[in-house]
Amino acid sequence: MSGGSEVDRLIELMAKLPGLGPVSARRAVLTLIRKKALLMGPLAQAMAEVEATVRECAICGNITTHQFCDICRNPKRDQSQLCVLESVADLWAMERGAFFKGRYFVLGGVLSALDGVTPDSLRIPELIEQVVGGDVTEVILALNATIDGQTTAHYIADQLGSTTTVTSLAQGVPIGGELNYLDDGTITAALTARKAF
Amino acid sequence: MSGGSEVDRLIELMAKLPGLGPVSARRAVLTLIRKKALLMGPLAQAMAEVEATVRECAICGNITTHQFCDICRNPKRDQSQLCVLESVADLWAMERGAFFKGRYFVLGGVLSALDGVTPDSLRIPELIEQVVGGDVTEVILALNATIDGQTTAHYIADQLGSTTTVTSLAQGVPIGGELNYLDDGTITAALTARKAF
Repeated sequence: MSGGSEVDRLIELMAKLPGLGPVSARRAVLTLIRKKALLMGPLAQAMAEVEATVRECAICGNITTHQFCDICRNPKRDQSQLCVLESVADLWAMERGAFFKGRYFVLGGVLSALDGVTPDSLRIPELIEQVVGGDVTEVILALNATIDGQTTAHYIADQLGSTTTVTSLAQGVPIGGELNYLDDGTITAALTARKAF
Repeated sequence: MSGGSEVDRLIELMAKLPGLGPVSARRAVLTLIRKKALLMGPLAQAMAEVEATVRECAICGNITTHQFCDICRNPKRDQSQLCVLESVADLWAMERGAFFKGRYFVLGGVLSALDGVTPDSLRIPELIEQVVGGDVTEVILALNATIDGQTTAHYIADQLGSTTTVTSLAQGVPIGGELNYLDDGTITAALTARKAF
């Protein structure tokens, strides 16, 4: 390129973001330069701030800039319900729904024999400790409906035993879903879990 | 969201980049947080550096971190050929080809009666001045093949008159192009400009 080495380096770094390739990184950098005061300055500052302060919430594993995240610090959240998730992205997806009012626990992954992910590398011991020693009356397993996700859910349910009620998300036809476009597994699950109309 | 106000603000700013929406901005920020030391720190720094130093080259209008851009400062570039372009993005596209060895002149837009863009807002007087007072023997009009681009090309050619040779990019079938998928205008232009085989 020919914008000088600093500009080239910025383009190179931007191209490493998911969803951006070399072409869109160039376009993004040109936009940044055009909106220097309005966008580039604030973005550089926000990034530096987050880089300096961001960490894992000591309780739930969510991303936060304090010791404990906004949700864990919120006294209005129901302390009796604990929703177990694979990743922070899943937690954010749950929060967008704004329906769940309990607390979360982010595993940071799922068990995987192939990738060598064991219970100890997943904060599962911390989860058991929190549930056994706390006020939790219901653990909601909101893990992805993949093989690894469901294996992990079964393992956690086994470990928790009868210390608390363990539930999982319902499986079935998604809202707006058309049977014609659904896979056989989903249709079978929805049929098995059918209920009175 | 629930990553704290700093993280939310970063997501909001990232979502303003072209090619990123709210969903991909969240994904990008999660990646940044995961790669804090390797990607987020360097990116914040590169952005702050470019923000502080970037400006328009005083000669050609390219983006640079010095008074004059790398191309204008390069004594090996042919001073007799001047390629006129609409935008810095077009200049970068020309440079990727690495075929043209002359200098550039970025107009910063094209004439547009609808948008009220006049010759004075486009650095056209500076272009004329450079050509008339300099060593330029050929002006290559590499403006986009749109109505506004071609109107601008005609205007510049008129203004330059006979002070120098004025050429423009060839129009025709793009490399790898299939006639079946080309528009009528391109086929007509390619037919009109046909040459001995």
